[in-house]
Amino acid sequence: MRFEKPVPLTQIAKLIGAEIIGDAEGAAAGINEIHKVEEGDLVFVDHPKYYQTCINSAATYIIINQKTNFPPHKSLLLVDDPFEAYQKIVQHFRPFTPFFKPISDTATIGENSIIMPGAVIGNHVSIGAHCIIYPNTVIMDHCHIGDHVLIQAGTVIGSDAFYYNKKTNRDVHYKKMLSGGRVLIENDVEIGANCTIDRGVSGDTIIGAGTKLDNLVHIGHDTIVGRNCLFAAQVAIAGATTIEDNVILWGQVGVNKTLTIGKGAEVYAQSGVGGDLESGKKYFGSPVEDAMQKKKELVWIKRIPQLWEKVMSNK
Amino acid sequence: MRFEKPVPLTQIAKLIGAEIIGDAEGAAAGINEIHKVEEGDLVFVDHPKYYQTCINSAATYIIINQKTNFPPHKSLLLVDDPFEAYQKIVQHFRPFTPFFKPISDTATIGENSIIMPGAVIGNHVSIGAHCIIYPNTVIMDHCHIGDHVLIQAGTVIGSDAFYYNKKTNRDVHYKKMLSGGRVLIENDVEIGANCTIDRGVSGDTIIGAGTKLDNLVHIGHDTIVGRNCLFAAQVAIAGATTIEDNVILWGQVGVNKTLTIGKGAEVYAQSGVGGDLESGKKYFGSPVEDAMQKKKELVWIKRIPQLWEKVMSNK
Amino acid sequence: MRFEKPVPLTQIAKLIGAEIIGDAEGAAAGINEIHKVEEGDLVFVDHPKYYQTCINSAATYIIINQKTNFPPHKSLLLVDDPFEAYQKIVQHFRPFTPFFKPISDTATIGENSIIMPGAVIGNHVSIGAHCIIYPNTVIMDHCHIGDHVLIQAGTVIGSDAFYYNKKTNRDVHYKKMLSGGRVLIENDVEIGANCTIDRGVSGDTIIGAGTKLDNLVHIGHDTIVGRNCLFAAQVAIAGATTIEDNVILWGQVGVNKTLTIGKGAEVYAQSGVGGDLESGKKYFGSPVEDAMQKKKELVWIKRIPQLWEKVMSNK
Repeated sequence: MRFEKPVPLTQIAKLIGAEIIGDAEGAAAGINEIHKVEEGDLVFVDHPKYYQTCINSAATYIIINQKTNFPPHKSLLLVDDPFEAYQKIVQHFRPFTPFFKPISDTATIGENSIIMPGAVIGNHVSIGAHCIIYPNTVIMDHCHIGDHVLIQAGTVIGSDAFYYNKKTNRDVHYKKMLSGGRVLIENDVEIGANCTIDRGVSGDTIIGAGTKLDNLVHIGHDTIVGRNCLFAAQVAIAGATTIEDNVILWGQVGVNKTLTIGKGAEVYAQSGVGGDLESGKKYFGSPVEDAMQKKKELVWIKRIPQLWEKVMSNK
Repeated sequence: MRFEKPVPLTQIAKLIGAEIIGDAEGAAAGINEIHKVEEGDLVFVDHPKYYQTCINSAATYIIINQKTNFPPHKSLLLVDDPFEAYQKIVQHFRPFTPFFKPISDTATIGENSIIMPGAVIGNHVSIGAHCIIYPNTVIMDHCHIGDHVLIQAGTVIGSDAFYYNKKTNRDVHYKKMLSGGRVLIENDVEIGANCTIDRGVSGDTIIGAGTKLDNLVHIGHDTIVGRNCLFAAQVAIAGATTIEDNVILWGQVGVNKTLTIGKGAEVYAQSGVGGDLESGKKYFGSPVEDAMQKKKELVWIKRIPQLWEKVMSNK
Repeated sequence: MRFEKPVPLTQIAKLIGAEIIGDAEGAAAGINEIHKVEEGDLVFVDHPKYYQTCINSAATYIIINQKTNFPPHKSLLLVDDPFEAYQKIVQHFRPFTPFFKPISDTATIGENSIIMPGAVIGNHVSIGAHCIIYPNTVIMDHCHIGDHVLIQAGTVIGSDAFYYNKKTNRDVHYKKMLSGGRVLIENDVEIGANCTIDRGVSGDTIIGAGTKLDNLVHIGHDTIVGRNCLFAAQVAIAGATTIEDNVILWGQVGVNKTLTIGKGAEVYAQSGVGGDLESGKKYFGSPVEDAMQKKKELVWIKRIPQLWEKVMSNK
């Protein structure tokens, strides 16, 4: 999440009740999770296992629950509960603000764009020119829609991330990590009916120009989809994954989080992608493999009875 | 389905045109299907194959189409078509009543709860305190929503069960079994966008406290989900299944009907669960197996070519 | 797409700027894609590879970008870009016409049908008698709904086809083929919540009488579903496929495009159907096989370690 303008570190410290360790003069550009953080950003860490990863990340300001060594150009913000500090920052800079009209007064809609009955457009949403927003779609706060974008009926853009902090005091339960990010839909994107595209937790979820989504597709938080991709019906992509340009995912493909699918890769229907995929290749299976390799494997399986007979008659 | 108060057996018999065989003095507490029935309940059976199961179930009053032996503390309600008798009872005690305002006059909404634009709230729905019901969600008749519940946009709570009676007269076709049950969402549950949670056929569908559902998740009728479970996107659970506390189902997992997943079990993405799963274990595959076992099996499959070469060169 | 009445070939030629080669006297009954075309129809072809298939199809009038031999009773319509000509015809005869009221003035609704809050009914939609259209459903332009049809909440009928023309000039991108077709829902069909049924590209998508769909089901463009079928939750069917009567597809089954599933076939959960299936048989797997065969195969796989031990100890 980018702040509208850099926020002095002293203001952040006051907001979350932190002691500043190191240089207190700086200003934070935004706050992000570890996978997406950039120089000038805040990041938070509450488990010693991840202290070094966070301190050595691109982030400049580390919200942490223990005094730890850090490089000279960075600062620590010491608090008891870094997760709660993160929540406070998101709530302060991007608070949930209910709206009670179908189209919020702070939404802007470009010329020649059509908003059909039952569509709900949230606060600070911007929709470009020559778009059609079909009936009963929902576009939540802060999302940006480019030009010449079609969104079929019933689709939800900007739902909250499915991102929870596991708590094990008393019993195992889950505390929601607030979503401060947005969804950015670039020009010429077309989205089917009853899809769901979650906003970023702290970064943005992006659908690249010219990409086309079929119906009932799910795109998780902070996922970056490239240009001119095709995703068929019921594809699901977990969070913080990168799909490069011209990737084709056929029906019901599932893709795990924080991985990369290379440019022009094609994944056949019902496959399950659990790791990075190389550019330009074809894949199949759950778990996914090179499509040709998988096809051969299916033939090998059919030869087991023949093997069995040969071996067992050879006593 | 519980009746508001016990209904005299004679009133039930009159409603469905039944002859009472046995004690006619009792009163029925409710009506339920065989998997969910309790003492004092009505149940119905129309096929001799299931007569004994129904008569020996917890149910006290058996709607049946043939005089059959039964224990002394029970009664039979003899009718020509027990299925139609069931339909009449549901229609009488929980009739479909259309509503024509987005929020029915009989719905109640707790303090500090926010209902956003386009949400539709049916008859006799109760929503607790501190909830956010996002745009274009639908909560159908008689559902109960606890406190601190979030329901993201486009989700449908309380749709009818997918439960049909197969008829083979003339041609094979299907007659809908009316849903008289409800959906109960306990405190601190969070539900993603464009999910569907069916009401019980005659019991209730329950989502336990603290459970979190991602987007496009389907929960079938009469399913009981425990506390603090996590279900990722596009999970589908068929009817009358029991999921115990702290179960984790990853993306696109499918679960069959009338089975039990034990406490704390974890099922990896795209798996298909066709039978009971034990507590605390990890599972993978379609059909599902112990995850470690399945992983080994995938390695064994890759060794077939090596086996083949060894065996075939050994002529 | 049928025209309301036959359109003189000369009028078509003028609309798309075509030179007529052959008899200019005829009139076109409609326009269709190659899989669905009938005598009297227009069809278009822009790649020499498909010239002969199109010219020899049932179509009478071929929109084409090169002078080619053709039989005497047919005519060619010569244009630079047949795809753009197709788009012009669809835009002319079935233009996208936004509507701004929840229920278009040109929609007709039969007696005793109930339209619940938030439902959106498009232009020229017809709904029969004794239907219930639940809250927040969307029925787009030109769709026909029969009698005694139930459509649960959030379902979208008549979304555009996921059908794109790949363009490789400059970079690979996709141009939408406009949908001119409709969705026809026959009598006694029941559709679950948050389903999506795409309209035909140029023909119609049809759901046969008595068929029942569970929640979150996707039906692609131009697909023909027979009578009294059952599709469980999250089934997805790609475009232009034929499903015959009494077919049962269990949860999360995926079906590829332009294939046929024979009468009474049953496909178990999570299967992936990539080719035609025979009538009356049971199938399982991804890719799908005869269910018994697949079950045996799963047993064979478990015997690999035993084979391995036998072979490797036999050095």
